[in-house]
Amino acid sequence: MIKEITIQTKKRNEIIDVTKHVEEAARNIENGIITAYVPHTTAGITINENADPTVKEDMLRKLSELIPEKDDYKHAEGNSDSHLKATLTGNSTTIIVKNGKPLLGTWQGIMFCEYDGPRTRKLIIHVKK
Amino acid sequence: MIKEITIQTKKRNEIIDVTKHVEEAARNIENGIITAYVPHTTAGITINENADPTVKEDMLRKLSELIPEKDDYKHAEGNSDSHLKATLTGNSTTIIVKNGKPLLGTWQGIMFCEYDGPRTRKLIIHVKK
Amino acid sequence: MIKEITIQTKKRNEIIDVTKHVEEAARNIENGIITAYVPHTTAGITINENADPTVKEDMLRKLSELIPEKDDYKHAEGNSDSHLKATLTGNSTTIIVKNGKPLLGTWQGIMFCEYDGPRTRKLIIHVKK
Repeated sequence: MIKEITIQTKKRNEIIDVTKHVEEAARNIENGIITAYVPHTTAGITINENADPTVKEDMLRKLSELIPEKDDYKHAEGNSDSHLKATLTGNSTTIIVKNGKPLLGTWQGIMFCEYDGPRTRKLIIHVKK
Repeated sequence: MIKEITIQTKKRNEIIDVTKHVEEAARNIENGIITAYVPHTTAGITINENADPTVKEDMLRKLSELIPEKDDYKHAEGNSDSHLKATLTGNSTTIIVKNGKPLLGTWQGIMFCEYDGPRTRKLIIHVKK
Repeated sequence: MIKEITIQTKKRNEIIDVTKHVEEAARNIENGIITAYVPHTTAGITINENADPTVKEDMLRKLSELIPEKDDYKHAEGNSDSHLKATLTGNSTTIIVKNGKPLLGTWQGIMFCEYDGPRTRKLIIHVKK
């Protein structure tokens, strides 16, 4: 089963919790594997803390300090930083499904990472029994 | 098949070889895919050199230089660096199984990456024919 | 189905488009999942922009600025930077197959990342219905 989710981002750099979409997809199977796939080159997906919002702020701030928007880049679109951040984050993640639920740790949430927003983005969820 | 392994880490930053646990799980199937999944938000998993221990030391040292423990973080728990390192490393890895063995390269080992230890951690191994 | 591709790299740091090999493997199945796996510890694989070549140049240049070849490393082989880059990039990627084609976004290509070339490398492609 393949499901496509639309995500509207609001900032240039933003982390958005998409766990609920994966939970909905997991309900269709007892056990298996979900692949959450980002079909973009300036956004990524990760699994990280979903409780304290300052974690996301710290992560985005430190990442932008390491890979600044303005630098000695050749690419004319002004988003070379976004491409590198996307690769370092990764554009897909694998989640184990057990008894119809994603097998996430206590503090884990599935996070869509926007690095060149605001944009209308897609997330593809593939469910495999 | 889902198997849960317990890992006791001893340092704040530490890379621990967990290849043997994946090898044991691979014995149950002829061919397939293994997902090794870390259910934590301040630890990760990677596949890298398992021979010379200085590789791990260099990787951890350089990563901590880029993302220091003390910085201008908002998150009060003092482990924002650990969260960012976990995302950059990734919290799961996929291994191909062929003839009951993980298809690893000559120098590859599967490495649990602790970034906020010492702690008692879990590693979930999912085997799919 | 497992397929092994040989890749000849020409520079120490180089990004090579390997999308066509994954497309060929995808033709064998209607729907499923492909794992593209790099069995090396100083190379990686990512999905990123395949149009403007300056994106690759910017990514490689910035990454080498963050993780320089020469530094205070203990590992005697002179490629500790390559190992860390490989872990940050990741050594495998998952691609969804739909109607015999990899479900890639408009600008996405599958990119082999050499960080310690020139070398003769392998890419393992695993196809699962």
